[in-house]
Amino acid sequence: MSLLLPLLLRGAGGARGALRPCCRAASRRGLSSSSGGWAGVRPGRRSLLAGLAGAAAALAGLGLVRRAEMVSREAAAEEEDELSRRCGDFMAPPVSGLRELRSRRQDMRSRMEMLIMETQSQVCRALAQVDRGAAFTVDRWERKEGGGGISCVLQDGNVFEKAGVNVSVVFGHLSEEAAQQMKSRGKTLKTKNGKLPFCAMGVSSVIHPKNPHVPTIHFNYRYFEIENADGTKQWWFGGGTDLTPTYLNEEDAVHFHKTLKEACDQHNPELYPKYKKWCDDYFYIKHRGERRGIGGIFFDDLDSPSKEEVFQFVQSCAKAIVPCYVPIVKKHAHDSFTPEEKLWQQLRRGRYVEFNLVYDRGTKFGLATPGSRIESILMSLPLTARWQYMHTPPEKSREAEILEVLRNPKDWVH
Amino acid sequence: MSLLLPLLLRGAGGARGALRPCCRAASRRGLSSSSGGWAGVRPGRRSLLAGLAGAAAALAGLGLVRRAEMVSREAAAEEEDELSRRCGDFMAPPVSGLRELRSRRQDMRSRMEMLIMETQSQVCRALAQVDRGAAFTVDRWERKEGGGGISCVLQDGNVFEKAGVNVSVVFGHLSEEAAQQMKSRGKTLKTKNGKLPFCAMGVSSVIHPKNPHVPTIHFNYRYFEIENADGTKQWWFGGGTDLTPTYLNEEDAVHFHKTLKEACDQHNPELYPKYKKWCDDYFYIKHRGERRGIGGIFFDDLDSPSKEEVFQFVQSCAKAIVPCYVPIVKKHAHDSFTPEEKLWQQLRRGRYVEFNLVYDRGTKFGLATPGSRIESILMSLPLTARWQYMHTPPEKSREAEILEVLRNPKDWVH
Repeated sequence: MSLLLPLLLRGAGGARGALRPCCRAASRRGLSSSSGGWAGVRPGRRSLLAGLAGAAAALAGLGLVRRAEMVSREAAAEEEDELSRRCGDFMAPPVSGLRELRSRRQDMRSRMEMLIMETQSQVCRALAQVDRGAAFTVDRWERKEGGGGISCVLQDGNVFEKAGVNVSVVFGHLSEEAAQQMKSRGKTLKTKNGKLPFCAMGVSSVIHPKNPHVPTIHFNYRYFEIENADGTKQWWFGGGTDLTPTYLNEEDAVHFHKTLKEACDQHNPELYPKYKKWCDDYFYIKHRGERRGIGGIFFDDLDSPSKEEVFQFVQSCAKAIVPCYVPIVKKHAHDSFTPEEKLWQQLRRGRYVEFNLVYDRGTKFGLATPGSRIESILMSLPLTARWQYMHTPPEKSREAEILEVLRNPKDWVH
Repeated sequence: MSLLLPLLLRGAGGARGALRPCCRAASRRGLSSSSGGWAGVRPGRRSLLAGLAGAAAALAGLGLVRRAEMVSREAAAEEEDELSRRCGDFMAPPVSGLRELRSRRQDMRSRMEMLIMETQSQVCRALAQVDRGAAFTVDRWERKEGGGGISCVLQDGNVFEKAGVNVSVVFGHLSEEAAQQMKSRGKTLKTKNGKLPFCAMGVSSVIHPKNPHVPTIHFNYRYFEIENADGTKQWWFGGGTDLTPTYLNEEDAVHFHKTLKEACDQHNPELYPKYKKWCDDYFYIKHRGERRGIGGIFFDDLDSPSKEEVFQFVQSCAKAIVPCYVPIVKKHAHDSFTPEEKLWQQLRRGRYVEFNLVYDRGTKFGLATPGSRIESILMSLPLTARWQYMHTPPEKSREAEILEVLRNPKDWVH
């Protein structure tokens, strides 16, 4: 599911709670600890402070020192309030802690952590609302080697069979296996005393609904940083959103792809066709000759044109998740269905399991890493699945119709 | 499941039928075609014929030629009848065909093919009887590159949720991937113009019952031959039988292991402890820290003390399948169970899927080989399975009891 992330998620302890804004207590702690001044500020924050200090000195020459001090404090306090306000809606306090995030708020690691926390919250709230208030279980877990995560799971709800939205923010030194995997993907890594400091974060999710007329969605957006021996950093983003319907509904397929295309097109009209194809290629169950679903977008190792531009693009993709999916859920959540349709859904769920356990790079890697948080990695598996020997749907049936599209992916928007 | 076999099972055509002795028509064809004499006999058969001819010549000197001819024909016909009789109980005509088997009846390939066909038939008949006459579907399939197989499946029966017993007999040239895998297991392979002629055959099976108080069984017995560049042959046997209960029943565990131990002990008292440990080590779901079940026996690359002795051992193991398992099925097939017990069974089935798709060498290899007969490989998966986020059974529950044994394997017989 989340490429290269689960492997790093060595979970240790964990605390559980129900769905609620969880960050406020932490925000308050954060505010009070920094109200005494800028002590504790980390390097990343220093250039901005230097700017404020310079302005204050200039104003001091005009005898306006006190005023300038007040202005800079007000500006800083406002920024702090903005960060606290955003955190207030999260499912749990952010992994890095508000003080840490504040101290390097312009750093991509902080901006991405805020984005993935926000995405988790937006998706969970939208799903809980559709599921008529069903509660997400919120598990906060820590990784011994650095970082941790927040897993939100809604199981056996009214509309959803299993909905998991996982955030992880991990750092430390890359394992030999992970470094090897990166080299195999063409990365040039210069180790520092054989060590590779890294930071990886992402939000990943699989939502399996109960009704066979509501498709399964998967999404994952992630950011990776590796520090080279000379102190320079390599960074890249990866991600994607894809849909797995049990039955084909062309209108839904078009809506889903169109929403993703619009998100991509804001940045570059070449992105959607490229990432649509990458998605069809990646989610391929080779031994079945079928794609897992009707695709969407998928990309990895994205490190150009600039960090800022890629982040803006990832942000657009993340913002498209709720609008590309939730209208489809609402439309079909109460569709009637037959036992045969439920059975077909279960067989397709079996294929989902096959893809995730046999091919998905992130899952395989995560399972192979001792100490991974298995429950978060395997959150992607459906609640129930089925394997029937030699099941072949009748020709021209609705089951054969979706199979045809899984075997020969279609272009849904032009 | 069947180590190194499924990869080779590139299925092409297939014919289906219900459970019935299927070999007689072929036997008749075989008999009639050879009734005109020994024309058609292949090299492997010639030394035996030379012996018979020599005896006939000696008798000719005594003026007893006609009599000797009659005697040798009678002996040959008797042997033929014996082979035909044994074939008559098979689920389908043997892959190699009766004429071929007859022509090299002393060859290990023929003896092993007869054994795996017999095992398939004995197990299917015993299970069908327990399931009150439910029918096995018999699929006969061919492999384009050489050989084929017979898959017998009983699905959604009275007692069994899914019971599959698969025979395959394949030959040709080893794929690069398969050769690589063998080298990694320490085999020294001398290719002939880069080619490695091989012959592989085996019977493999997974039986998933409906009732959570009846355990799942898996077994697999196989024989492998590779021809070196100098014409010499490498051969080895592999196999095993293991049990996966949903709930622990100590009496059943002891019966199962005791029956296997007795089969092993007939040959060497060192075999059972060694293969019991190998089984516990092999069926390990590493990311869960659990074994798949309560074990049994497992061995691979077995090529000593002699081909004959190993074959006799494998034969004893194969003969132990029905007695080690069927009494347990009969004992519990009608046990009452609660919905909670059924749910626990489904969660354990999920673990079974995890082992088979993530770790099982045969399954992984099979899925990675283009053109494999996927339906036969994935026959091992249960009809239904379940994954529940963060499921932990209460302490001292019957669910916790089996988990304890899966985490810390026990010795069931001494």
